Amino acid sequence: KLIKLANNENPYGPPEGVVKAMNDAWKYGNRYAAPDGGIIDAIAEHHHVKPENVLIGCGSSEILKIVDDAFLPDHKLVVGVEPTYETVYRFATNSKAKAIAIPLTKTYDANIKEIIRVTKLNARDVGVVYICNPNNPTGRIVPKDEIKLLLDSIPGDIPVFIDEAYHHFVDDPNYEPSVKYVIEGRKVIIARTFSKIAALAGMRLGYAVAPKEIIDQLRPFVMAYNTNVIVKFGGVASLKDTANEARIKQLNKQIRDRVTNELKAMGYEVIPSQSNFFMVNVKKDVTAVAEEFLKKGFVVGRKFPPMTEWLRVSVGTDEEMKGFMKTFKEVFPAQPTAQTKAGN
Amino acid sequence: KLIKLANNENPYGPPEGVVKAMNDAWKYGNRYAAPDGGIIDAIAEHHHVKPENVLIGCGSSEILKIVDDAFLPDHKLVVGVEPTYETVYRFATNSKAKAIAIPLTKTYDANIKEIIRVTKLNARDVGVVYICNPNNPTGRIVPKDEIKLLLDSIPGDIPVFIDEAYHHFVDDPNYEPSVKYVIEGRKVIIARTFSKIAALAGMRLGYAVAPKEIIDQLRPFVMAYNTNVIVKFGGVASLKDTANEARIKQLNKQIRDRVTNELKAMGYEVIPSQSNFFMVNVKKDVTAVAEEFLKKGFVVGRKFPPMTEWLRVSVGTDEEMKGFMKTFKEVFPAQPTAQTKAGN
Repeated sequence: KLIKLANNENPYGPPEGVVKAMNDAWKYGNRYAAPDGGIIDAIAEHHHVKPENVLIGCGSSEILKIVDDAFLPDHKLVVGVEPTYETVYRFATNSKAKAIAIPLTKTYDANIKEIIRVTKLNARDVGVVYICNPNNPTGRIVPKDEIKLLLDSIPGDIPVFIDEAYHHFVDDPNYEPSVKYVIEGRKVIIARTFSKIAALAGMRLGYAVAPKEIIDQLRPFVMAYNTNVIVKFGGVASLKDTANEARIKQLNKQIRDRVTNELKAMGYEVIPSQSNFFMVNVKKDVTAVAEEFLKKGFVVGRKFPPMTEWLRVSVGTDEEMKGFMKTFKEVFPAQPTAQTKAGN
Repeated sequence: KLIKLANNENPYGPPEGVVKAMNDAWKYGNRYAAPDGGIIDAIAEHHHVKPENVLIGCGSSEILKIVDDAFLPDHKLVVGVEPTYETVYRFATNSKAKAIAIPLTKTYDANIKEIIRVTKLNARDVGVVYICNPNNPTGRIVPKDEIKLLLDSIPGDIPVFIDEAYHHFVDDPNYEPSVKYVIEGRKVIIARTFSKIAALAGMRLGYAVAPKEIIDQLRPFVMAYNTNVIVKFGGVASLKDTANEARIKQLNKQIRDRVTNELKAMGYEVIPSQSNFFMVNVKKDVTAVAEEFLKKGFVVGRKFPPMTEWLRVSVGTDEEMKGFMKTFKEVFPAQPTAQTKAGN
């Protein structure tokens, strides 16, 4: 049986109350719409916005797709960093829009000043600015003052799309969620997902929060009946279960920090992460490394050009990560500057 | 509690074996991909095609959307009938393509000769020809010889998209499914869904069967992880359960024919249907009629212009349809040419 450390999932699965809420909704399985558990209202309440500010999708994947549909037609530009979650750029290519991908800084952070410069330079053609915060695959945040700087610096009619899939794992005080800018009426689209901390990746539920006029532009592009009936009930139960969320956040941090400290002690460069994954510089092409891990039963992250020698590892359970460290030492027996050897 | 006769769903729900298959897959709910129950192979085997000819979607809704994405960019044309399932035309409008909607014949059938004429006339600009077979909302089939005539008559490089959502309910010997044309290598795309006879509307699973080169054109447009993990297991179980399928088909026909005969005996014009819904001419605007039914606890079909006085009714259970007939007689107490009065 393979250990999956490849897709930034929650390895613990959804809590009992969420599973029960979904099981109770089976009876609607043959209906398209039926009761929806009040998911839109629950999300709106959670964010202190109106239901008209919320649009649910088949995972946040569908939100990424319809933002492309609505704002990135032929010849338009999306401005973002590289590497980031590549799906937005893939959809842009599909629709014959183009991506301007700004390299990360030396600390692997988003170069917000450069994003501002390039956006202003191409203002007429920029369909959307894409910020993944925290960023996948680096786990780095864009601090709140830089988000504000971005929004204050570019023309106010350019939508800024902030993907907060990994929001729940952050504990850096310099971070803040950006729904407040939606409430201020700025052209900001927030994407959230139930696939990460809520452990419902396989059940497909995500959403956008945005000003009403943007939601109205996005709505025609969602699929008829885009989400299954039972996950909506799961989503409502999940939003209420803050205790489980806190538990997962704490577990993730504890295991992530132990593993990354161990790797650093072995002499490996690790990017400090605010999420449920981290990147380690393995000084070797990631594709070959991933194949070696696979032979030993571990599925690790894909390659994120141009960081071709940085391996992205999703944080698994305590046991899974002990297995990962054991395997890491087998795959890389000659350790660059190893002086200490952490217990296992 | 409302009785839903509005969305052509299966009122009996999925059979026990299908529900069990889905329940057994809960353990993958926190993973994106995980095992998929072998759904692609099962569909391929079912149709005697290769896995490369199959693409699954979040309901056949997603198939409709990606056909638009791939074949109906700005200024292209979709040719089809009116009324039909309007989603394809809605997506076409979104992408700034245009629909040429050909009126039905006097018998409410697709005018295939006119579709051929118009398609040939606009051959350079036609992105796709759309045929819903049997057609929603009329329940009428396009006979097999007319499908062949269409394919033989239009330029071979124009894709023909045949939506067979209601395929399983047909018993007219002049009908045949069109996967055979995919196997012949023609530019035909078949859409199927698990939302109708398989009773999984709320769980979202549909698929396309098409030549490999068309699937390759469609694939970039599907969402990452477009279907939930558990419905794939349900779909595999459903394809195997031919006994339940036969039972639902028989029940649907029996109840549909009883109700439509009763309406005809009351003097109402009913379009002979080959599906799990039918249209009755209520000689009054459908929107107002639907409101009256709603007040009495029945949700009936929406308006399908230009057939604004034809009510589409989905076939419910025996008990639901007895309730429908009782309500129909309340809503229309003065019967146009009533001579007999069926028992209730």
